[in-house]
Parts: sequence; structure tokens; C-alpha cells
Amino acid sequence: MRSDELIELRGGIGAVPGVRLAGVHAGIKKRKRDLAVIAFAEPQHCASVVTTNEIKAAPLVLSERHVAEAGERMRALVCNSGCANACTGDRGMRDAQATARQTAALLGVDTAQVVVASTGVIGVPLPMDRVAKSLERAVRELETGGDAAYDAAEAIMTTDRVPKLSAFALYDGATRYTVGGIAKGSGMIAPNLATMLAFIATDAPMRRDVLVEELRAAADETFNMISVDGDMSTNDAVYAFAPQGKGEAPPGFSAALRAVARELAVAMVRDGEGATKTLTVDVTGARDAAQARAIARSIVNGNLVKTALFGEDPNWGRIVAAAGAARSGLDPEAWSLFLNGLEWVARGAVEVLSEAEAHRELEGTAVGVRLDLGIGDATATAWGCDLSRDYVRINASYRT
Amino acid sequence: MRSDELIELRGGIGAVPGVRLAGVHAGIKKRKRDLAVIAFAEPQHCASVVTTNEIKAAPLVLSERHVAEAGERMRALVCNSGCANACTGDRGMRDAQATARQTAALLGVDTAQVVVASTGVIGVPLPMDRVAKSLERAVRELETGGDAAYDAAEAIMTTDRVPKLSAFALYDGATRYTVGGIAKGSGMIAPNLATMLAFIATDAPMRRDVLVEELRAAADETFNMISVDGDMSTNDAVYAFAPQGKGEAPPGFSAALRAVARELAVAMVRDGEGATKTLTVDVTGARDAAQARAIARSIVNGNLVKTALFGEDPNWGRIVAAAGAARSGLDPEAWSLFLNGLEWVARGAVEVLSEAEAHRELEGTAVGVRLDLGIGDATATAWGCDLSRDYVRINASYRT
Repeated sequence: MRSDELIELRGGIGAVPGVRLAGVHAGIKKRKRDLAVIAFAEPQHCASVVTTNEIKAAPLVLSERHVAEAGERMRALVCNSGCANACTGDRGMRDAQATARQTAALLGVDTAQVVVASTGVIGVPLPMDRVAKSLERAVRELETGGDAAYDAAEAIMTTDRVPKLSAFALYDGATRYTVGGIAKGSGMIAPNLATMLAFIATDAPMRRDVLVEELRAAADETFNMISVDGDMSTNDAVYAFAPQGKGEAPPGFSAALRAVARELAVAMVRDGEGATKTLTVDVTGARDAAQARAIARSIVNGNLVKTALFGEDPNWGRIVAAAGAARSGLDPEAWSLFLNGLEWVARGAVEVLSEAEAHRELEGTAVGVRLDLGIGDATATAWGCDLSRDYVRINASYRT
Repeated sequence: MRSDELIELRGGIGAVPGVRLAGVHAGIKKRKRDLAVIAFAEPQHCASVVTTNEIKAAPLVLSERHVAEAGERMRALVCNSGCANACTGDRGMRDAQATARQTAALLGVDTAQVVVASTGVIGVPLPMDRVAKSLERAVRELETGGDAAYDAAEAIMTTDRVPKLSAFALYDGATRYTVGGIAKGSGMIAPNLATMLAFIATDAPMRRDVLVEELRAAADETFNMISVDGDMSTNDAVYAFAPQGKGEAPPGFSAALRAVARELAVAMVRDGEGATKTLTVDVTGARDAAQARAIARSIVNGNLVKTALFGEDPNWGRIVAAAGAARSGLDPEAWSLFLNGLEWVARGAVEVLSEAEAHRELEGTAVGVRLDLGIGDATATAWGCDLSRDYVRINASYRT
């Protein structure tokens, strides 16, 4: 990591030169923006990381085909919110195809050069007349810059409270490159990309296989390490775009991409449905990275950990029980637990921090827990949020 | 299954001849009964199924040793609530050993012939003076029958609202046998036995390996198929006892054991923390039992399914997304979904039941969902409950 050499920018994906954006109101949702278009001046290399859910939305299936066919020369992405276009049968695929075809025609590119994404309610078809009409307007309104990126970030929101943008600049000698992205998250965020969309671009050229590998590695340490409620969605995807280079990525690109991905991932957790607190879980002293990751994810996924965090209840037993539930081969007598940097429980049993002290540490809105397994050198970090009464309210719409 | 030949009895484990029970107030909890003893007139074969959590409570570790050493001649079980005796270091093991030793001395049996179990808060040591004093009283008060079983069932409760007892009689020709049990569940119930204790006895003699296999098979279809919140505890265990027979179990025993285990498991779900509704999920038409089980469990474990159930929100997309998240190789176009026996969604996309009709079906306190995968003949059933605001209230004690 050389993130100390990175410069954080405003404007998210709009900070990347050559990227044009629009976010408009198509009427899929009642009042809010719900249709975003991202267009590139030149063909781009494209990489994707998509949901592992076996029920995949039509736009996701179609986009995987397009990326396979034209991943070396992608030109645009179109995304609607308010409707997932999942479990919509043959009609869903026809609608996704029509959306890609129209976007391509408006931009004068091939249909396969367009990525399509959707997010929202499952089982309801897209109102295609409205989408078609608004797509024309969106393409007419395409602009560069942070304001357009903000509109696009707003147009992909579902229960998100705030748009999510992140951008960092890196220098390769005197050459400045930018990596920027927008994302939506909120409900259903979990390991393995649940109801989460992120679109990332850069002006740093590289080979496509380099971009694919960089995205996979960055997603593994960021988007795959967050949790709001342990569920996996049918629509989740991360797409990254880079100019058609023939070599490696510039030094510092990995760090910049990771920084953007981490900012977007943590923003999703902070904006988790009903969340009042965020939880960062560091696992250290693990035998290997797989163990550290499994335990970190198990802790941020535990409902009892999440409710204790909401209640500011210093119930460390729930954290340890969640770690043990990962069945990763931990040593029940070697672990130690830390809270906001303070030793909490030593060597599997000895409470160092008093209940009152621990309770006080839990009162902040950002809580950090470190579980040292005491058996190796590997580490991992996961991010989560609490489980509040508001989470239940938001997700139990008929009652409330 | 020959459960139609079974006769349901009152009194739970107290319905089994030769079983003496007591449940007393030891002062681990403020007012309620918190110490139970079960004693057998004759040495028993004993089988166990215990948590897969790697952090195991001291009593559970000790009992596994005792079952390994004296599983052919077990004589008693002692269980406290209010304190898990987990993550209590060397002291925890010494306390569990002392409890077993004292129980054995009071009953005039070997220490290894005693199973010890605990449930409650993690990381707090047992108040051994109180346990010691009350153990004497409990052993003095040991009695046969349903009232004593009710006291014992009460003494193992934590956040449970009601004691859980179940018993069935079976006939082998003219010979009548009984299978009976008590259990506690509530919070943290999940696949793989989470914060769940069940103690089952029978007067039907059989070889020990037969009992072991019968218990494993019954637990797989009952205790391992329930979920309240997806967490796994450090203390959970099922123990079954049977007279020292030299042959097979009588015909009908499997069905009776399964009936008792299912009654106890469903009682736990019904009494899940904050639960207002129970959900029975049948998966049919699966390629094999493993797939059917994985999908049924994934559905009852999904927070979004649980909150939709609480809200009576006919959001079938969440059920299907939870099924797809199991990554079991389902066919996204072959499934059909049924609600309380009515066709809900046909062949992956076509909504048959209107939203209003589906909403009406969700108003009851017991909801049944069947997902037919349309690719085979295997089936499985899982049981769960909704996720309510009260679940959050109960588990966020400091705030509320």
C-alpha cells in the first residue's frame, strides 16, 4: 500500500478525464432520479465482479455476455434503480437487451459495448416506455465533471440515504492519473457482493488482464469484506473501465483502486439500512489470510454482534462466539480481543477492560474491534454496521 | 415415517419410566429456577450431538470426554442456566468438573457417568458456592413424572418464554415404549445447533451405536433445520439416553424420536426471541437432499425474508434470492413457489397470486412456503421465525 502518496479528489467517477455522465428521472421511481448513463469517449477495457447468487438478474446475465464479447472495447454503462429486472422471465432479458440496444444506438456504438445494470424490487418488469423516453434525454444531457457524477450516483440509489462517490489521484513520475467511482449499497450488503453496485473508471491505460486481476484483488479486500445483513442479491456487480493500454498499470494504481473501492465499500456500510454505528473488525495473528478473512466476516455478519453494537452492550462473548462459528481452526486459548485499541479480553478468558469502560468505548458511532488469534501473522479487515430497530422497520414495509 | 401410529403424551422427559428430575432455584439467576438434574435408575447408553463452534464451553468439552469414557453407562445430567461457563479459562473447566463430581457423589455414581451442561452469559464464572448448595437440594428433590419434568424444563430456560417438553409413545406389538424430552432455545437458534439444549430419554433398550445413529439422523432433520438468527453458540448440545440394550431399536422408535425432536425444535422456533410468526419452508423437487436442505436453511436464515415475514410483506423476490444465495445448483427457470399451499409464482417469473392475496396469507401466525425446484425428487423442511423489532430490543439490552 502506498496510499500516503495518493491525493483524494472530489467528484467520484466524474473526476476521471473523458468520462461523461448523466442521472435523470425516468419515472420508475415516483420522484427521484432513477436512470444513469456513463459514456466513454474512447473504447475501454472492462472488468467485472458479479454476484455469486444463482438467481441472476437479466441485465447482469446480459452484461456478462457483453463483457465476454466486447470487454476490450466497452463504451458505456446504463443503470436504472427502482426495479431489479430480476425474476422477470423472457421479458426481463428482452427489456435488458432493448435498453442496451437503444443506448448503443444513441451513442453510435455496438450493443455489446454497453453494460446494463438494474437495482430495486425483484419480480416486477421495467416500464420500458419511460426508460426509452428518458434514455434519450440522459444521453443528450451527458456531461463531464463532479456534478454529473453526483446526479448519476443519485440515480442508482435505492434505500441509500446519500450518494456514494470516491476518487483518488496518483502520480507516475510527472504523469497524473485518476481513479474514480460511484456506488450504491444500503440493504442486503454482505460478503459476496449483495445488492451493491459500483462503477469505477480510470484514465490509466493497462492491458485488460491486468485490469481484471487488479479489480478482483481490490474487490476481495473491500466489497467482499462488508456486511449489512448477510444476504446476497441477484443484481450486484462491480464494473471497472480503463483505457486500452498494452502494458502493466502504473505504480500506485493498485493502491488508488483499493482506496476508491474501500471508500465506496465503507460508505455503503455507513449507510446500511437503519445503521447507527459502523464496526471495523481487524483480525490479526491468523494462520493465513483465508482464516483471517473468514473470522472477520463471521464477526461483522453476526446478528447478535450487530444488536449488541446497537445497544452499546459490551458483550464480548458474542464476538468470540461468532469467530468460533467460522470453524477456521482457531485456538480457543490463544486469542486476545481489543476494543478501539484497548486490550479487552486477554488469552481467551481474562477480562482486562471493565464492563463500564467497554460500554463507554461502544458509545461512539465508529467502533473498532481487533481479534488477535495468536497463532500466526496473517491479517484481514472487515466492515459492518449495527442491527437496529430501524433496520426491521425499513425491511418490514407492510407493518410500518 | 409411521408417526400416525404414535401417541402424543404429556410430561416430556418425565413421561419416560425410570427418569427422575428436579429443577430448583440456585441463585445464578435472580428469581427463576436455574439448576436442573436428570437421574436414571439404571446406567444408560448415551449419544450426543454438539455445537460445531470452535469456542466450546467447558461443560461441553468435559461432557464430550465423559460420553467418550462412560457413554455405555451414563447415570445423570446436570444443567444450569444463567451462566454459559464459556470463555472462563481454567477456572471454567475446574467448575464444570466440580459440578460433575458433586452430582456423582450425591447420586453414588462415577464422575464420568454425569453429563454437565450450561447456558447463559459467556465470560462469567459460575457462582460455585450457590451451585454446590442447590445441587444437594436438587438431588434430594428428584422425582418422576411430568411436574418434575416441567420444573427441570423451566430451570434450563434463558430468554425462553415457555418451557419446552415433548413425549410420544410407540407400540412394538403389545409392548409400549416412550420417548420424551425437554429443551431450551430462543435466541441464537440456527442450523448447527445454536444456543440450544435438548435432553431426550427413552425406555426402549438398544445398542449404543444404534442410539448414536438414530440421534444423528433425527437431529439432522430437526434441530439442524431451525433458525432464529443464524448464529451458533458455544454451548449447544443434544443428549439422548436409552437403556443398555444389545439389539436394534424397536420399530417405530425412529419416528417417535423424530417426532419428539421436531416438536422440541419447532417449539424453539415458535419461542424465538421477539418472534411473532413461524415459517415452515418445504423445498421439493430438489436434485438431492443436500440441495434441498441447503436451500431450506438459506431461506429460513435470511434476514430480509424474516423482516418481510414480520411486516407481512409478500416480497417473494427475497425468498428466491435467499434460495439462489445457497449456491446449490438450482435452475433459475424451473422453480415454482407456493404460499400456504397456494401457487404463488410459477416457473421462475409468473406471479399467480396477487399481492393482496399473498399479503392476506401472511397475516396468520404460522406461514408455510414451498419452493419446488423442478429438477428432481428430493425434499427437506426447515423452520424459522420472523425478525421483529422486539428481537432487536431483546438483544440490545444496554439501549432499551
